[in-house]
Amino acid sequence: MTGGAAAGVHERLAGYQDRFDGLFAEYFDSVAEQGLPRSSFVPEALELVRDMSLRGGKRLRVALLHEAARLVTPDAVAGLDEAALSIELLQTHGLIHDDIVDDSPVRRGEPSVYYAYRGRFPGRPQTALGLAVLAGDLAAFLSVQVLLTAPVPRALRQAMAAVQATAGADTVVGQILDLERDFGPVPGREALDTVSEYKTARYSVLAPLRLGLLAAGEDPAAHEKELARYATLIGVSGQMRDDYLDLFADAATLGKPAGSDLREGRRSYAVCAVLAATTGREREAVESALAGPGCPPETVERVRRIARHHGVDARLRAETHRVAEEASAVAAGWRGRWRHEAVEFFEQLPLWGALRVR
Amino acid sequence: MTGGAAAGVHERLAGYQDRFDGLFAEYFDSVAEQGLPRSSFVPEALELVRDMSLRGGKRLRVALLHEAARLVTPDAVAGLDEAALSIELLQTHGLIHDDIVDDSPVRRGEPSVYYAYRGRFPGRPQTALGLAVLAGDLAAFLSVQVLLTAPVPRALRQAMAAVQATAGADTVVGQILDLERDFGPVPGREALDTVSEYKTARYSVLAPLRLGLLAAGEDPAAHEKELARYATLIGVSGQMRDDYLDLFADAATLGKPAGSDLREGRRSYAVCAVLAATTGREREAVESALAGPGCPPETVERVRRIARHHGVDARLRAETHRVAEEASAVAAGWRGRWRHEAVEFFEQLPLWGALRVR
Repeated sequence: MTGGAAAGVHERLAGYQDRFDGLFAEYFDSVAEQGLPRSSFVPEALELVRDMSLRGGKRLRVALLHEAARLVTPDAVAGLDEAALSIELLQTHGLIHDDIVDDSPVRRGEPSVYYAYRGRFPGRPQTALGLAVLAGDLAAFLSVQVLLTAPVPRALRQAMAAVQATAGADTVVGQILDLERDFGPVPGREALDTVSEYKTARYSVLAPLRLGLLAAGEDPAAHEKELARYATLIGVSGQMRDDYLDLFADAATLGKPAGSDLREGRRSYAVCAVLAATTGREREAVESALAGPGCPPETVERVRRIARHHGVDARLRAETHRVAEEASAVAAGWRGRWRHEAVEFFEQLPLWGALRVR
Repeated sequence: MTGGAAAGVHERLAGYQDRFDGLFAEYFDSVAEQGLPRSSFVPEALELVRDMSLRGGKRLRVALLHEAARLVTPDAVAGLDEAALSIELLQTHGLIHDDIVDDSPVRRGEPSVYYAYRGRFPGRPQTALGLAVLAGDLAAFLSVQVLLTAPVPRALRQAMAAVQATAGADTVVGQILDLERDFGPVPGREALDTVSEYKTARYSVLAPLRLGLLAAGEDPAAHEKELARYATLIGVSGQMRDDYLDLFADAATLGKPAGSDLREGRRSYAVCAVLAATTGREREAVESALAGPGCPPETVERVRRIARHHGVDARLRAETHRVAEEASAVAAGWRGRWRHEAVEFFEQLPLWGALRVR
């Protein structure tokens, strides 16, 4: 794959992102204009859900959705806008509740919904918590509702909503697995992959693929195994990349101090790889960094040195690329069956993501 | 209405409840048997959702659903079981998150899901909170999913799921309104009715009515206004009854100490009525009971005496009955249009509920 091909992915992503951000803002206007009861708390909750939603990101899920439809047809496809809204509302739901689960003050450089409410109700943390839970719930129900009222045949609405309800349930299972990962024996590779699959791949990759194909008139069930494999590989490779960067990148690249997984006792791919590579006093050092309440930059630096000494960084980079190549190879199997330019997107995307760990 | 007619309602409720409780247990068995990833936290979350779900109550919503179908036909109707599961899963979702919002240790005589988790993770309240939020989310997605896979035509699945997604969103709005009610100026009757409508009536009465009619082949949209009016009147009357009992019943009748609304600063129908009826030092006494962190039984007793002195108890009882009679009158308008025995149920139900404040 060439740099040019990867740039192609980048441009397509940017195009979808721009268009979607406008659509998302319009959607929230339309919700706010529905006959809601007189209140100040309800519009405020909607506003916080909106703010979090429009705080963006790359909208990779939206791109996957559109490109999945383009596997089948180059024409405009009804229902994709509602599917995109549903996907990103489910994401907002997940972010709002995740920030409660992790007690995170910041999301994408601004206050999390939970902490925004804590700021608005200084002496009443319980009220802030309650409203944040409810704001996340609202996003979840809106996510399903927007599909069930899409201007497409009812059978398609039903099929698309079923995809999202399943994605929602799977993601919750993934978040529970994610919490479980930090208890008991150190998880092996298979367990870590299962967390990535449930917590991320199913709603972020598999669901957009299914929705795009459904809207374009193709039955995703006929290709279920390949789609799920592609999704899981992308999810695993992406999580490995994030975990690698969290331990090994510098703060300037990350936009935050490195080592947050260590500080928060999270058994990421990188952390588990260091644990597996070390024994005796080195391993004790890593374990005490994980156990302590927040570890200082010197400790992060020490764990990093230990990891590099054992070649953990190089192995993790190599494995990230290997998994990305494997995802790309799954998509290459779609040549001939589906439209070339869209297949090419799915082939290039995993490598474009993995590029960031070079 | 005679005591005999009310007993008829009671027997029908008991019949639906028995059958449903068995169905609900089977449903959870089937979820647990689905190919879930290896984990101990995920089955535990499902088990807590199941426990909360099977802790029962009268299953009034399930009875409303079945009787709504019986308005149209005495025959068995496909989809009602899944609709009943969806309704009660949505209820479980609401209870789990409500107990986080209210920081409630107990629900139906046993630990809330939140406090069950706190018991399991003694030194880690953040983990307990996170898992409780996620358990509630799981119930919400299962609630939609069970309808979207019901063995009925896809268009019906879609229509039923749309009812539940709307009910879910409305209930969240109601819970937000419920929190808002205790801030700012004392709410008037209209605002209190809106809380009852959104927080309870829409998901507990209107949604079951819509689902039952849909499953039986009737378009609820054609009767929307009457159905919504009936639902709101039932919701308001039921909430008034609960609020009346909370202030005026004895602990033996309630199964818990009276005055929880006062202690927790909740501006219930009863509390607002006492505030509206009092001035000067009496009103100050009520306000300081509401403002204090928990008020002792003597204070509850004093507020109760003040309320009785101003006839608040009698007026609230009368108003509860009036609203219930109004609901009954709405249902009486369905005679001739729909099947007699089911119409009778809807006529009697509001009065049966209101009986408890005699």
